[in-house]
Parts: sequence; structure tokens; C-alpha cells
Amino acid sequence: MNAEIISIGSELLLGQIVNTNAQFLSQQLSVLGIDVYWHTVVGDNRIRILEALRMASDRSDIIITTGGLGPTMDDLSKETITEFLGMQLTIHQPSLKRIQDYFQSLNRNMTENNVKQAMFPKEALILQNDNGTAPGAVIEKDNKVFVILPGPPAELQPMFLNYVSTYLAKKTGEGIFSKVLRIFGIGESVVEELIKDLLQQQENPTIAPLASAGEVKLRITAKAASREQAEALIRPVQTEVESRLGDAVYGYDDDTMETIVLKLLRERGMRLALAESCTGGHVSDLITNVPGASDVFLESCVTYSNESKVARLGVSPDTLNKYGAVSHQTAKEMAEGIRKTSGSDIGAAITGIAGPGGATVEKPVGLVFMAIAGSDGTKTKELHLGGNRMRIKYSSALQMLNWLRLYLKK
Amino acid sequence: MNAEIISIGSELLLGQIVNTNAQFLSQQLSVLGIDVYWHTVVGDNRIRILEALRMASDRSDIIITTGGLGPTMDDLSKETITEFLGMQLTIHQPSLKRIQDYFQSLNRNMTENNVKQAMFPKEALILQNDNGTAPGAVIEKDNKVFVILPGPPAELQPMFLNYVSTYLAKKTGEGIFSKVLRIFGIGESVVEELIKDLLQQQENPTIAPLASAGEVKLRITAKAASREQAEALIRPVQTEVESRLGDAVYGYDDDTMETIVLKLLRERGMRLALAESCTGGHVSDLITNVPGASDVFLESCVTYSNESKVARLGVSPDTLNKYGAVSHQTAKEMAEGIRKTSGSDIGAAITGIAGPGGATVEKPVGLVFMAIAGSDGTKTKELHLGGNRMRIKYSSALQMLNWLRLYLKK
Repeated sequence: MNAEIISIGSELLLGQIVNTNAQFLSQQLSVLGIDVYWHTVVGDNRIRILEALRMASDRSDIIITTGGLGPTMDDLSKETITEFLGMQLTIHQPSLKRIQDYFQSLNRNMTENNVKQAMFPKEALILQNDNGTAPGAVIEKDNKVFVILPGPPAELQPMFLNYVSTYLAKKTGEGIFSKVLRIFGIGESVVEELIKDLLQQQENPTIAPLASAGEVKLRITAKAASREQAEALIRPVQTEVESRLGDAVYGYDDDTMETIVLKLLRERGMRLALAESCTGGHVSDLITNVPGASDVFLESCVTYSNESKVARLGVSPDTLNKYGAVSHQTAKEMAEGIRKTSGSDIGAAITGIAGPGGATVEKPVGLVFMAIAGSDGTKTKELHLGGNRMRIKYSSALQMLNWLRLYLKK
Repeated sequence: MNAEIISIGSELLLGQIVNTNAQFLSQQLSVLGIDVYWHTVVGDNRIRILEALRMASDRSDIIITTGGLGPTMDDLSKETITEFLGMQLTIHQPSLKRIQDYFQSLNRNMTENNVKQAMFPKEALILQNDNGTAPGAVIEKDNKVFVILPGPPAELQPMFLNYVSTYLAKKTGEGIFSKVLRIFGIGESVVEELIKDLLQQQENPTIAPLASAGEVKLRITAKAASREQAEALIRPVQTEVESRLGDAVYGYDDDTMETIVLKLLRERGMRLALAESCTGGHVSDLITNVPGASDVFLESCVTYSNESKVARLGVSPDTLNKYGAVSHQTAKEMAEGIRKTSGSDIGAAITGIAGPGGATVEKPVGLVFMAIAGSDGTKTKELHLGGNRMRIKYSSALQMLNWLRLYLKK
């Protein structure tokens, strides 16, 4: 089976927003084993929407539209699709009730134009919108499936994952279940090399590597009649992959490096404090994005100047003079200093040259030193990173968190 | 004139990347006054590329393709467009020379398949690639303009801005010049209300509001024969807008709040230190994204725990007990404490409830206090922000920077 995505909305053609819906749906359809050969973007224009529908239904089995389901005059998608299919719009009472309740819960009056959002052809299967007012729909006609989805990603994504995915999986005869392994510290090409034979043999489950910012994800996807059966298919492959990649697998599905580090700190009953120089507070920023971080995270001293390294952390001026701010020795004293002055169980420090200024022949842009101080002493580590200032800040922050993860796992 | 964008690449149809090229080109074409009615995405497949070209040339004046110009077998764009136009590919010697020089500069051998990247129909105007090996091209035939661009945004964007934009502007008869005003602290609807009459009267220059994360941008665009003439058209409109929006206009074009704050600090010869609680280091992270921040930025103490507020900043335990960590009083003592302990000219502090936990009836999620301590005493400010944890962190960080800007301007 193949599918085509028609995104409807003049804001896309004006470049006001980027078409993340097409990307999301393509990823999901690929997981379902459905080929996507075309994306089309068209404005809120009846004639051109009709042309897009005609082209799409000539060449594709599944036609998915996004956007144009709102209450205003220029939201034409549902009306035009209904016209194209030769059907009639009538009020879908349960949807109307939901929209009325929604407005009541906000203590606001529902304006008359909102009724439009509850109107669908009677042939449609209605897809409840758990995150907004405009429901979606699935309509089948002449062996073609039309899936009508709202434009806002926060409404479209859960609607697809909760309702459409299962519907389409039934069409293809089976359910689709997947597990994502999150990998840090080795590149996509090395991951592929390490599991080359598994990638070549794959059938069910399939293994798909996805490179994303600073990490690699491996999605293991099984087709099966039930979640249990899928898990039974996924488990041995996952075990094999993990035995080859070892510690590089840092988490699963929605885990992030910072949630994992905080989880390990809680498990160990340990409290963390940071001393940051080149990352400028980015490690601390990531950690405090996680709700409840304050349980185990005490503070970060972003000691950007040498004076502050001395005053806040007790780094020795001699060390700074002799070895420089970017050195094993300074990193070590920063980590020990933050641990001592904060009273934390673990003190972690990072100092480096993010550039573009500040580099010398001996100390080039991208040179970074990290240190972790604990009850069993202090360890240091040297990194050589590439890229511009932002890239060096961000990747060194992830390296620091990853090292903390490995340290805490031991 | 109208244009259509055909993005070529199977990675788009698999959802591996999002189509930022279509967005960028749409924005740029809109500025040039060229309407975009269609985006199409098609895979690296000769038959479907031909179909997309046929549809596009039936309905649009300008057809822009992106992607598929690389050296490998599955890069088919140029070959297929040349076939569609009934032309022949030959080697473009200057491009071949550039590609050879490129490989030589990297000390690498140029493989034979790279010659393909220098092949174009002799009717083509070649667009030099200043950031990669694959040149682009413009070909005119039967009153249609075909613009062929590489896929990587880092190559496509400068090629469009430096070469294609001028080419298309000549087609439309005039050049396009614009100035962006960056506005913080008032919403898009308020901005529109304040300049409603200007928006209604607009002709040349035009004024386009663009809401983006945490700020509003106003793009004033003039069509004129030269930059000087355009600037003469833009200036009076800009002056009028600025007189109405006042201090809310914080910068121009590529300015950011953090570059402006650092610039003002340098102008005043003042050094800054921060005490952050709810922002978790995000203010410091933003400031240190700017190269050379270390000139005027000393440090940030991310004092997440109460103990660290006392130990690092000298906040009184009585103040914390009596008023709580999220209060005018604590913010004030944090700002005064960081100023004193760091030896900075200005100490700025922020404390608040980012949620989802930690809220009470008196102190709801989104309550934030800021303070600035300087030689003339300490000021505090209370904010009530909406949104989730990340949103509160990020918008309170921008509020802090904006307040520093206004403080330094006085």
C-alpha cells in the first residue's frame, strides 16, 4: 500500500511555518510499512485543493490531508473533500457536544462558526481530538482511504498515534510495535558497522538507525497480532544489539541523557553540583529542564572568569598560571572545589575552548577537560571536539552528562 | 509571477529530514512579491520527477527544484530536468576546475563520479556553490524559468540569497531590500493594533509582522532600483514605527537580546554576574553563546537549593523562612549577593516557580521575581508567566535579559 500527504494551508506556502506534519506522518507511515511517494502542499483554495485530491486519488491508496479544519471561513478542507467525494456534511452530535463542553469548561461562549467543526459526511469514521476542538475523520470510498487530520502538530500527532495508526495497521493486517534504543558516544556509521549482519538479515522485526542531534537512535519495529507477540519478537534482537553496543545504549524511547542521570542519582541517593566554564550553564540548563531536578541537583557555578574559579571553587591561582584555565589540573580543582563548597556527593566540572577566540597552538578550539570528584577521588578526561562555538558547548555538555551516567552506573 | 517548489529526495518522503528548504524559499519568494501556490516533494525517481516537472510547468512561471545534485547514482535531478527540457548535458569547465581545486585543497583524490556535478546543459546559467561542490543552475525555456538548487540548506540558502534572488528580482524589474525590527515585551496583536493604519496604507515599503518564539519581528521591505533608494523609502516608516513602539524595539536584523545586552555592557564599561534559580542556567547559557562574552560576563551562580542561595550569595536564612525562595526579598538579596561576592558592577537575579511541582495557592506556577543590583541600589520586578516548565524557564530568561537591556540603556 502507498500513501500520499496533502498539507493544506497558505501559511506553509508563505513560509511562515515548516511542514513538520509531513515529516511526522512520513516517519509513522514508514514504520507501518506504507510507502510514501508524494507530499503536496496547497493553499486554502477550493480549486487547488480539488486538483490535489484528484491527482492524489489517481495515484495513491491512502490520501492523508492535514490542516484546514478550523472554524473560520478560510478553513475549507473538510468541505472540499466532502464535495470531491460527492457526499454531504451533517452535524455529528457527539462532536458538537464535545466542542460545547470544551467552551463551557473555559467559561467562554461558543460562537456559531464552531458548529462547522462538528460537521462531517455520515460515511465518516470520526477521530476524536483529545487536544483541541476540531475532530478528524477517516472516509473510505472506491478502495481509497481518505484520512483527514487537523493542522496543529499537538493535535495531529496524538490523533495519528492513538487512532489512525491502529486503523491503518488493521488495513495492512497487523499491528506495529516498536522500541527505540538511544545511543551516545559512537557515530551512526560505527553503529551500522557493529550490527551490519543484523541490518542485512532483518525482516521482522526491522531495525532502522536514525541519526539525530548528538546521538543515534535505533528503532526496532515488529509487526505482530498483539503487543506481547511483538515484544517477544523484539526482545532477542534488542538483547543482541545491546550486547554489541554495550554502554553506548543509554536509554529507551523517551529517555534523555539528563533524565537518566537524575534517575541514577536518585537510585544512588547522591546529590550533584556542577562547575561549568565553557558550557556556560548549558549542563545545568539541561538538568533543570527535568521536573523535580531539585531533589538531587544542588547548584552549578558557571565560573566564566579566572577570578570566579578562584573565589567560588578555590582553584589555586598557581594552577591557573602554570597550566591555564583549560587543563586537567584546573578541571580537577574545579570538580573538587564544587564538591567541597556545595557539600554535594559528586562534583563535576568542565572547562574548554569553545572559540572562536581564545585558542593557541597548544590549546586549539574544541579542547575540553572534564572532571568528576567523588568520595573515591577525582577522575579527569580530555576531549577534542569539532564544530563552531554552539556545537562545542552543546556536545561537551552531553559528553559531561554521559560521563556522569557511566560513572554513576559503576 | 508565481513559483512552485519541487523538493527531490527520498529522505524527505521517509521523514528522515523536514523540508526546511521549501519554507526558506517560500519566505524569500514572498519577499520578492512572487506567489507560491504549490510545494511538491518527490523521491529520487525519474518517472515521478518527470511527472512533477510536467505538472509544475503547466501551472507555474518559475519552477524551483531542490536536491539530487550530488555525485552518486541516485542523484537524478539535473539529468531528469535536462531530459524534460530536451537538452544535453556537457561538462562546464569552470565548475569542474572548482571541484578539482576543492578536492586538492583537502588533499583528497577526486573520484570520477564527481565529474557529474560539473555537467549542465549549455543553455544553463551556472550558479556557483560557495559552500559545497554541486553548482546550481538557472535555465529559461518557453517563458518558464527553471531554478536548480542543491539540497543541503547550508549550500542552498547562500546560493539563493547571493545569486537567485537578484536574478528573480531583475525578472520582476526591481530589487528588494528589507530591514527587520525586533520587538520584545508586547504581543503580535498589540503591535498590529499600534500600527494598524500603517499596515492598512502600506504599498512600498510593505510591513509584515512575524511572530516567532518569544518575540515579534516586523519586516519592512522596499522595492527599488538601488539599496540607497530602498533605504530612503524604509527610513521614514521605520522612524514612525519606532516612535510608536518605543523601547519595545530592541534590535535589528540579526541582533539577539543577548548580543544587545553584551554590547550595552561593553559601551558602559560594566561587568555582569548572575544569580539564577528557576532559569537553571539558561540566562547564562544564552549570554555565553555569544563569542567574546567573557569580556564583560564574570559568572552565574545557579543556586537551585536554598543552601546554595545562603552559602554562595549570602541570602539570609530568615528571609528564606519568612518570605520563601520565590519572593521580592530573596530576589533582592540574591542580586545584591552576587554583585558583592563576584565584584561585578551589576548583579542580576531571578527566582520563580517553573512547575509542575512546587506551587502553592499564594505562589502559583509561573510566578517569577527578578532583581537588578547596581551602584545606585536594587530594583525588583514580579512576573506572572504562562505555559509549561520549559516555556517558563525560557520566557523568564528573556524577560531578565530584556530588563537588563532597559536598565543599561538608562
